[in-house]
Amino acid sequence: MDRGRKNVPISLQVIGRIQTPFVEATGTPIQSVYAQGAKGQVIVADSFAAALDDIEGFDRVWLVYWMDRATAFQPRVVPYRDTRERGLFATRSPCRPNPIGMSAVRLVRREGCILHVLDIDVLDDTPLLDIKPYVPEFDAHPSAKAGWFDACGVDRKVADGRFHEIPGKKR
Amino acid sequence: MDRGRKNVPISLQVIGRIQTPFVEATGTPIQSVYAQGAKGQVIVADSFAAALDDIEGFDRVWLVYWMDRATAFQPRVVPYRDTRERGLFATRSPCRPNPIGMSAVRLVRREGCILHVLDIDVLDDTPLLDIKPYVPEFDAHPSAKAGWFDACGVDRKVADGRFHEIPGKKR
Repeated sequence: MDRGRKNVPISLQVIGRIQTPFVEATGTPIQSVYAQGAKGQVIVADSFAAALDDIEGFDRVWLVYWMDRATAFQPRVVPYRDTRERGLFATRSPCRPNPIGMSAVRLVRREGCILHVLDIDVLDDTPLLDIKPYVPEFDAHPSAKAGWFDACGVDRKVADGRFHEIPGKKR
Repeated sequence: MDRGRKNVPISLQVIGRIQTPFVEATGTPIQSVYAQGAKGQVIVADSFAAALDDIEGFDRVWLVYWMDRATAFQPRVVPYRDTRERGLFATRSPCRPNPIGMSAVRLVRREGCILHVLDIDVLDDTPLLDIKPYVPEFDAHPSAKAGWFDACGVDRKVADGRFHEIPGKKR
């Protein structure tokens, strides 16, 4: 391995913002699949307009975003859908070393640099990092075993405050 | 929207490296589904060991990584699986504003801070940003329409050099 590259700084650019009805963590859906049709608007910076061409044909898109209000990294957490601690990388909890989130939301329509989406599960004004088309051939593995999720005893579908800072504090 | 946050710098930390058989773009599988069982090792930094607990129960994990050898952002590209230009966000091409890649690879076993995986489709020594468990309930949408992919006329499964810099040049 080229150890010399280990500490090269990587910096991200915010390419847009995701507008949603969820202004605080408490009550926000923990996954898109639990969002019950919640509406969002993805506001992409004008300079990326041409890069949105052809996106209308996709039922779903992956939104990749920066979970700027998540608490700092914790190696073990009690996830929303369990009662005991799990390793962070075996959970979808937001308090990750790099708080990168991804959601496969339903795409309703494009209006210039705005994507109207359904089943949004992120906080309002979340910084957008990328948009990728959802391609079942690449992304859908319906029969994959899902560890503790397959036996989880908690049917929680919305967040509480356990993984988010006090309102206004950004990561 | 809080425009004031638009330019807050976001920086990432490299939490590990992905070792693969693919030292150059040409010939590297373009997606995990086309990787025909290619073997990879995910070397996670020791400080994240506890965060890997419970991961063994998952058939697949999402690797989230920084595509450090991709060319600079291009708004429109001819993707590997088509013959005409498409908007970048309607493709999975690596020359993205933020070259964040994600692959749902098969997890074979964990050995301390090393994950042995199959169907790896990334270049050797790629910086790792995150690991998430693959959860079909959240991630699998097998019947989603996939725009131009559903009618694509090119059955390419490995990369050529079109989206990568000359060897050695890093982004």
